[in-house]
Amino acid sequence: MREEACRRGPAIVVEDAYHYWARVTQLWATLAPPSQEPLVHPTAYVHPSASVHASVRIGAMCVVEAHVVIGRGSCLKSHVTVLKDCRIGEDCILHPGVVIGADGFGFAPHKGTWVKIEQLGAVRIGNQVEIGANTCIDRGALEDTVIEDGVKLDNLIQIGHNVRVGAHTAMAGCVGVAGSANIGAHCTLGGGAIVLGHLQLVDHVHISAASVVTRSLMQPGTYSGVFPIDHNATWHKNAASLRQLHSLRDRIKQLESELHK
Amino acid sequence: MREEACRRGPAIVVEDAYHYWARVTQLWATLAPPSQEPLVHPTAYVHPSASVHASVRIGAMCVVEAHVVIGRGSCLKSHVTVLKDCRIGEDCILHPGVVIGADGFGFAPHKGTWVKIEQLGAVRIGNQVEIGANTCIDRGALEDTVIEDGVKLDNLIQIGHNVRVGAHTAMAGCVGVAGSANIGAHCTLGGGAIVLGHLQLVDHVHISAASVVTRSLMQPGTYSGVFPIDHNATWHKNAASLRQLHSLRDRIKQLESELHK
Amino acid sequence: MREEACRRGPAIVVEDAYHYWARVTQLWATLAPPSQEPLVHPTAYVHPSASVHASVRIGAMCVVEAHVVIGRGSCLKSHVTVLKDCRIGEDCILHPGVVIGADGFGFAPHKGTWVKIEQLGAVRIGNQVEIGANTCIDRGALEDTVIEDGVKLDNLIQIGHNVRVGAHTAMAGCVGVAGSANIGAHCTLGGGAIVLGHLQLVDHVHISAASVVTRSLMQPGTYSGVFPIDHNATWHKNAASLRQLHSLRDRIKQLESELHK
Repeated sequence: MREEACRRGPAIVVEDAYHYWARVTQLWATLAPPSQEPLVHPTAYVHPSASVHASVRIGAMCVVEAHVVIGRGSCLKSHVTVLKDCRIGEDCILHPGVVIGADGFGFAPHKGTWVKIEQLGAVRIGNQVEIGANTCIDRGALEDTVIEDGVKLDNLIQIGHNVRVGAHTAMAGCVGVAGSANIGAHCTLGGGAIVLGHLQLVDHVHISAASVVTRSLMQPGTYSGVFPIDHNATWHKNAASLRQLHSLRDRIKQLESELHK
Repeated sequence: MREEACRRGPAIVVEDAYHYWARVTQLWATLAPPSQEPLVHPTAYVHPSASVHASVRIGAMCVVEAHVVIGRGSCLKSHVTVLKDCRIGEDCILHPGVVIGADGFGFAPHKGTWVKIEQLGAVRIGNQVEIGANTCIDRGALEDTVIEDGVKLDNLIQIGHNVRVGAHTAMAGCVGVAGSANIGAHCTLGGGAIVLGHLQLVDHVHISAASVVTRSLMQPGTYSGVFPIDHNATWHKNAASLRQLHSLRDRIKQLESELHK
Repeated sequence: MREEACRRGPAIVVEDAYHYWARVTQLWATLAPPSQEPLVHPTAYVHPSASVHASVRIGAMCVVEAHVVIGRGSCLKSHVTVLKDCRIGEDCILHPGVVIGADGFGFAPHKGTWVKIEQLGAVRIGNQVEIGANTCIDRGALEDTVIEDGVKLDNLIQIGHNVRVGAHTAMAGCVGVAGSANIGAHCTLGGGAIVLGHLQLVDHVHISAASVVTRSLMQPGTYSGVFPIDHNATWHKNAASLRQLHSLRDRIKQLESELHK
């Protein structure tokens, strides 16, 4: 379940029960009658220079551009776009609307305008990676954007150019990772979390939903940062006080010095 | 207008004026010459086993998979994907890029990797539901994800698996609702709000834009939780103080005990 | 690079270096062999009433509806949707999955239901505008939604109806701008920022990533508002204290009055 990706340290008993359950659902899924449709849907467009393993399933309306490589057993659902030169490993699943390899967001400021920096890298995706509906992974500026083996991304996630996502890291829906962030292996990011550019997260870092990572996190652990929700009136009073928090601190300091002089 | 979905309790006069205005725009829209295009666009793909009412409009490049059911008077704009077994009621509008029934985000942890839990449910959508561009509604793990009558969803919204959205609830753009959340009827969620998994929101709950719902809300009302925006320098000082807030509280307590001893 | 759009005031030396670098990448890109594909991909659908300049490139599976106008030198990558009556200027780039001109989110409340306000405006996009993958720009309710010259939008951004984005403003990924917001020229919005409806931002306003703009900003400058991320346990204690911040302020006031009486 979605929230699994955001929980930490389930007891091994629970882990095994979940794993057993996963295997049961997989068995159940194999009982469905096999699809009669061809592996590559007749409405899909695959550029003749793409190198797609014979076992790959490509759904309706997909677009696979020049020089793309897709490994054995991978599956593109409908409406997936893989832009030129990107590489997808084995046994990957790309859900509808996924865009792999659009240009990274790169512009140089020049006299009040933005001059495009052509994005000359691509995207490299490992094996057993699953990517949710309408998620976007941008191509690199010079080097590639890299998604390592076993990564699981939910829907509507944005991965900027030159990001690295380490093996077996999972991200829930609506996460945004800015360019050149380097995220370790076995991390989890809760839904709606934002990671700023050029930051590093070491392995086994867990970010709570909707938290904003504004500095590198060099120690494994769980990190959070979200304003607690409250009745609107209460929130309003606390938010107003928050804007004076620095001066409140000064007043406490003043009181302490008066009392202790 | 978008922000209407986030406001509470407009005076009945305003409500009637808006309603009157809505009716005028609908009248105006009927004055446009009727489209000469066929109801099902020739570039759309509809699986032969799908059960689509003869009055349904299906736009260019849509994909409607096996055993899908779509009720009378509904309209799929272009590039909509409805995956197998999902059911859409009557008089619904699905805007471009909508994805209904992609796999929910379900994985069991196993020895440092994630094992896929096959998503065996589907999505059931009621009548008079409108769904904005590039919004995604995932299929259930076992039971269905359910969107009740009259729900209005804006663009780029993520609805996780097994969520229920109660009748006539409206959500503004960029909202994320995690798996198994149970949202009541007549609720409104402001843009960018996040609802964590397995939570319950009763009927008539209103969430301010960008707030994060981290606990069930069992009383109707308006709830907020967002850090107040400020000049960067001021924010910086207050945010730094915030990280010591717990110790500030202790210092106040200490001052009180000293003063009152 | 992505994060460039969120930084302020680089020294002119850096600006020139970036600009020089951008020009080098553009030169490099011209060295690739020219595409042999036709300008309008055979799988694209362009309505006969659309007015598309002969130099425009339209990628695979694009949908261009009736009476759309697209200016000289613009490029639609694959899977782009431009709905009826929308106008796109010269030298624009629209990345895969972009949706221009879906209905704005407009409903009038009426006896517990929502009555659709037909969206009778369109979208007008200037020259040299770049729009990232799966980004959505809604059509106006009566007047048009307007994106001025030189605007750069990253992926998965939502622009509500009747918004105006001033010239050369840049937004990083996952930003949401609610209806009728009026954003000036030369602004930057960091990733995941939210702007509420009907607000005004003057020229040269810079919003930090994930900040929520809840009031008009009538002075140029940099604005922030995000809960600082911390170890989960520390965050938990500070968040709990935050919910009592208003009463803490009262206690400080009380201490001050006792001490100074």
